[in-house]
Amino acid sequence: MRIVVTNCNTTRSMTEEIVRGARDAASTGTTVTGLTPAWGVESAEGWLDSHLSAAAVLDALRAYDASGEPYDAVVMAGFGEHGREGARELLDVPVVDITEAAAHLACLLGRRYGVVTTLDRARGQIEDSLHAAGVARNCAAVVGTGLGVLDLGDEERTVRAFLAAGARARDAGAEVLVLGCAGMTGLQRAVGEKLGMPVVDGVGAAVRLAESLVGLGLTTSRVGGYAKPLPKGRTWGTGCGRPPSE
Amino acid sequence: MRIVVTNCNTTRSMTEEIVRGARDAASTGTTVTGLTPAWGVESAEGWLDSHLSAAAVLDALRAYDASGEPYDAVVMAGFGEHGREGARELLDVPVVDITEAAAHLACLLGRRYGVVTTLDRARGQIEDSLHAAGVARNCAAVVGTGLGVLDLGDEERTVRAFLAAGARARDAGAEVLVLGCAGMTGLQRAVGEKLGMPVVDGVGAAVRLAESLVGLGLTTSRVGGYAKPLPKGRTWGTGCGRPPSE
Amino acid sequence: MRIVVTNCNTTRSMTEEIVRGARDAASTGTTVTGLTPAWGVESAEGWLDSHLSAAAVLDALRAYDASGEPYDAVVMAGFGEHGREGARELLDVPVVDITEAAAHLACLLGRRYGVVTTLDRARGQIEDSLHAAGVARNCAAVVGTGLGVLDLGDEERTVRAFLAAGARARDAGAEVLVLGCAGMTGLQRAVGEKLGMPVVDGVGAAVRLAESLVGLGLTTSRVGGYAKPLPKGRTWGTGCGRPPSE
Amino acid sequence: MRIVVTNCNTTRSMTEEIVRGARDAASTGTTVTGLTPAWGVESAEGWLDSHLSAAAVLDALRAYDASGEPYDAVVMAGFGEHGREGARELLDVPVVDITEAAAHLACLLGRRYGVVTTLDRARGQIEDSLHAAGVARNCAAVVGTGLGVLDLGDEERTVRAFLAAGARARDAGAEVLVLGCAGMTGLQRAVGEKLGMPVVDGVGAAVRLAESLVGLGLTTSRVGGYAKPLPKGRTWGTGCGRPPSE
Amino acid sequence: MRIVVTNCNTTRSMTEEIVRGARDAASTGTTVTGLTPAWGVESAEGWLDSHLSAAAVLDALRAYDASGEPYDAVVMAGFGEHGREGARELLDVPVVDITEAAAHLACLLGRRYGVVTTLDRARGQIEDSLHAAGVARNCAAVVGTGLGVLDLGDEERTVRAFLAAGARARDAGAEVLVLGCAGMTGLQRAVGEKLGMPVVDGVGAAVRLAESLVGLGLTTSRVGGYAKPLPKGRTWGTGCGRPPSE
Amino acid sequence: MRIVVTNCNTTRSMTEEIVRGARDAASTGTTVTGLTPAWGVESAEGWLDSHLSAAAVLDALRAYDASGEPYDAVVMAGFGEHGREGARELLDVPVVDITEAAAHLACLLGRRYGVVTTLDRARGQIEDSLHAAGVARNCAAVVGTGLGVLDLGDEERTVRAFLAAGARARDAGAEVLVLGCAGMTGLQRAVGEKLGMPVVDGVGAAVRLAESLVGLGLTTSRVGGYAKPLPKGRTWGTGCGRPPSE
Repeated sequence: MRIVVTNCNTTRSMTEEIVRGARDAASTGTTVTGLTPAWGVESAEGWLDSHLSAAAVLDALRAYDASGEPYDAVVMAGFGEHGREGARELLDVPVVDITEAAAHLACLLGRRYGVVTTLDRARGQIEDSLHAAGVARNCAAVVGTGLGVLDLGDEERTVRAFLAAGARARDAGAEVLVLGCAGMTGLQRAVGEKLGMPVVDGVGAAVRLAESLVGLGLTTSRVGGYAKPLPKGRTWGTGCGRPPSE
Repeated sequence: MRIVVTNCNTTRSMTEEIVRGARDAASTGTTVTGLTPAWGVESAEGWLDSHLSAAAVLDALRAYDASGEPYDAVVMAGFGEHGREGARELLDVPVVDITEAAAHLACLLGRRYGVVTTLDRARGQIEDSLHAAGVARNCAAVVGTGLGVLDLGDEERTVRAFLAAGARARDAGAEVLVLGCAGMTGLQRAVGEKLGMPVVDGVGAAVRLAESLVGLGLTTSRVGGYAKPLPKGRTWGTGCGRPPSE
Repeated sequence: MRIVVTNCNTTRSMTEEIVRGARDAASTGTTVTGLTPAWGVESAEGWLDSHLSAAAVLDALRAYDASGEPYDAVVMAGFGEHGREGARELLDVPVVDITEAAAHLACLLGRRYGVVTTLDRARGQIEDSLHAAGVARNCAAVVGTGLGVLDLGDEERTVRAFLAAGARARDAGAEVLVLGCAGMTGLQRAVGEKLGMPVVDGVGAAVRLAESLVGLGLTTSRVGGYAKPLPKGRTWGTGCGRPPSE
Repeated sequence: MRIVVTNCNTTRSMTEEIVRGARDAASTGTTVTGLTPAWGVESAEGWLDSHLSAAAVLDALRAYDASGEPYDAVVMAGFGEHGREGARELLDVPVVDITEAAAHLACLLGRRYGVVTTLDRARGQIEDSLHAAGVARNCAAVVGTGLGVLDLGDEERTVRAFLAAGARARDAGAEVLVLGCAGMTGLQRAVGEKLGMPVVDGVGAAVRLAESLVGLGLTTSRVGGYAKPLPKGRTWGTGCGRPPSE
Repeated sequence: MRIVVTNCNTTRSMTEEIVRGARDAASTGTTVTGLTPAWGVESAEGWLDSHLSAAAVLDALRAYDASGEPYDAVVMAGFGEHGREGARELLDVPVVDITEAAAHLACLLGRRYGVVTTLDRARGQIEDSLHAAGVARNCAAVVGTGLGVLDLGDEERTVRAFLAAGARARDAGAEVLVLGCAGMTGLQRAVGEKLGMPVVDGVGAAVRLAESLVGLGLTTSRVGGYAKPLPKGRTWGTGCGRPPSE
Repeated sequence: MRIVVTNCNTTRSMTEEIVRGARDAASTGTTVTGLTPAWGVESAEGWLDSHLSAAAVLDALRAYDASGEPYDAVVMAGFGEHGREGARELLDVPVVDITEAAAHLACLLGRRYGVVTTLDRARGQIEDSLHAAGVARNCAAVVGTGLGVLDLGDEERTVRAFLAAGARARDAGAEVLVLGCAGMTGLQRAVGEKLGMPVVDGVGAAVRLAESLVGLGLTTSRVGGYAKPLPKGRTWGTGCGRPPSE
């Protein structure tokens, strides 16, 4: 099985890290290809970034799909970022976003789960994303660590901040935690043991869910919301700088 | 990986059918063992049956766990039946119920899903089960076919009834359907093609989710709701008919 | 009027205490008969216990109903325990559970109510039970005292723990409190006075609601969810130790 | 026990009818006194009427309370009308409104209930009233008969309209019905038998709930929302026609 | 454009203050006329006051409407007070209540808003009012300052209390605040600057929304809930002291 | 006051039409400038289009903001399209989206409103957008006309389809309707009269709400979700066709 994992930002080192996490989680026989958008944001932190990222990721998926490379599923590795529904319309293979994936598995492990994310400003997007995915009900809290996406490299500091935020989520009723950023991939075991709680990594969860859908022969419904995009004129970015105009 | 699949009723032919469905869905390397409760109901249809079934299934799981046979996960094959949370407390391995499993995967395939079940009387239990599992939000409808659990053998009639009920669910907004009874396992492809919609079988979905959790090294949280049962006196059934008394 | 009160566990001294509370609350002319399940748990604390208890209580009710003793209503005295809906299917008389009963009356006394219960692990069951009963909306909090069911005998300690938990519920918005365990019956006046808030005992509430339904000639609807159980083979417990099998 | 039942309108024949219904439902030893507001609306149908009625009913209760006549509880007989919370603040005895009362008992008899009321325009008030009372969750539908409050005298026509509206509520999922107007009191048995469903009369339900609260020694909480009204200048109606002014 | 602003209480100095706030907020060309009810409460604090106030305000509006003075819209200046829906039925011009108005604008300025009001006892009414208006979803908290309506005159103390309560609302997630009492009109700029958050005054918001509706040629729907009141006998207050009677 | 209205697609004739509608709705003294994205979709119909449109619209706003042209508020004219929250982060002036604007005003005119939109596939986006905006509660239905965005030119057909869809929304409880596409601007009066219901045009509503916010000196909160975008590398579109890569 061939899974394409899209980073939501243009930072290739992060794509590599995500691909590493995805490969660690994948079943034997699954290959993982990482995709870095050719344009967009170097890290997605906030609504503006998320909207820009969504278009860039869809553009990358569109190009990949047109390239003729065969693939079986897509994992979208932006926690709380936009674009998921557009990708479902666009592609014929199953699409799993790491936000929803982590929540789906977390629901199987405890009555309430919590999300530990980067900056507090990301909370709104994550809440909306979980709501639309239909899994917000058992989310006890979304808690920020105060660390930006590109600050996660210092693992010791990240673990420390995660433990503090995780304790707040547990106090709010969480029995399971979710790593609320693709850049946290790999951290799950370390913090899980320290907190005595299961910690779900969205990248791994999404890879497994994508494998599950492919294995069961399931893909996105074309009835209703996710019908194929209508044929029409679309341009992806100004290119040569044509200015917006009235 | 060794998955134990528990039937919720005492009808062995149904256990066999469920095991067959589970094996069809399982990954290479996964073995499936069926478990039929030694007591309980010959088919679970309604609240009384569900409460009786829950205790009988937990008793069977308790005995299996005590038998020393190694296993990695449990799939509970009763759609909308009780017992799931008790099994999570009892066992150290992940527990996935087919009701929630089908809903989790369905959420990844469309904005709204519908459940097609046996008798209308089962709707309440299914709604409650989805609610507690945290995945009721995107359920557009739970629709009965009017067929009892043991009437599902006549496949032609079952398919006909399913298509009619599925159309009603689609009119209510469902973009994906769920087989609302373990006894419908195997039907997904036939009805899915006829309806032009993805149809999720809970048994297959649960097997894949159980594999995913095991593969990711995740199991039930002991923080909060699913702590281990407290040691105390418990007796499982009157056995020799000791009457209840004041 | 003859009300049967079922304890959810097999501890007869607790049945006696509950019966005492029920008799204190009953109107003149109402007789109260206690029923102790012949099997099950010595105290119900958690999901496993609750599922086991439900089957045992239904078995006791089934036997009582078959005994030919006339009775007019059933009160189920397990706070947050399962079985309520099964009893409604099984019996022709009204069935009132102490969880819902306390909540119904509490809603009449303040805008928000809180539940003070035994162990924190019981919170999930209570929340689910209130939700299914349709009265969760105005519940501000379910708070544990940290005392197990069989620890409630030390009244001084229980009162102290209740007052602390009650204060937390009030801070969360509760204007009325509910005794969240049948074993707390009798405590309502002492803690109510100390907290300056009405405190509702579920046993008393359920007795009065059962009397109300009987007095008004009302009983469970047979339309939809609570239709009579279908005739079929059911066995209640292994009895002679028939092992579960594949 | 002495229960005061307030009509929400100024039509004395309707007060009498309501008192008759209340007496039919009351326990032995309960006396029922009817109260007709001295001003307000001859029938309450819509928001304007409801707001006017609320002040008039509170004025009547205030006067009754000041009269020195002893009483133990108040039943407010306006289905979906305002004033309930004000009466709780004002009086030291329990206050039960027929809207909430019917819903509370209906929740004990089926998974979903429906309300059959007079004009469609009343639906919004009823929905809001059930919501605030905390019992809207299990309400499947509020359905109008198309008959005004003062049209209910023609019993044959009323029964016919009720059966049609009741069937619509059942199709929407209701397993129990509620008489959605105090003026329908007495109808419950006739329509219940024809529909094969329990039908709850709010007047009777409220009388029994009021008796229950009094019997258990419970009354409105003074913590939070229903604290006693603050002492201040209040005038009840223009009296001698002082015009409103800037 | 001519906007009539109704005070909810009989304190003329407060009407004047509200009119001043309304005029400050109004567009050029809008005239504001204040209306003080001829009867009712000197300040509305609690449910009883609110119910009394609603009838008195509707009586004042009825008289104003009958006076023949032309006007284009009504602003109801009672935060969380009743009567809004009745005024919509009664009048042919748009009616905007300051509670909902502040919430509508606050939703445009941040993901979650908070309300800072007078006494804690007002919270329930405000929550119900926001819920019925359809804008409760993004309300993070309603927080009391502990000051009564007639205590707001001491601006320094009011500001101090507002800042403390506002900080609690922000901690609960509010990104925007609402002045939760008509008597706070004028405070928005002072407290907004100190808190670094937008603060919405309901009086100003309602004036602008009323202008918007009039400018767009929109008024209350007569389909369904807000149909014109039916012609019938209505009396507004006892006037000459006719006592309530059975 | 200077309001910039952004079309969500690249079809200039539609921008002109929207500008015309905005000018019709604006107060005296308000100037309206239309903005057409330099790239993106020729019409936004579905999730993919919406995600692409969001980035293109934000790019256009970014360029406009950088151009030094003074402006006081932004109206985003894409019904149910993404980008609103990003624009709030990006710009210092108030941002009002036509989806939420129409819903806010509709809530003031009736208890429930309905949205009549283009294709059924747009329903999901609109529901999510209303939910995030906090005004979904009173939405009775979102109904499609079956007409695509660029099919709306044939006004007679559009009116006919709108009336049919509007009747369905009314049957679902709507008392007010909303034009669910910027391209329907201007239709409100014709269909409103025929249906006997108020019909709100989102473009006009948003213009008025934007004027209201500016007039009251209010703008987006920087506390929490809509803090200014962090400084970082962002590229808007591939421009010269750099391919996506791993």
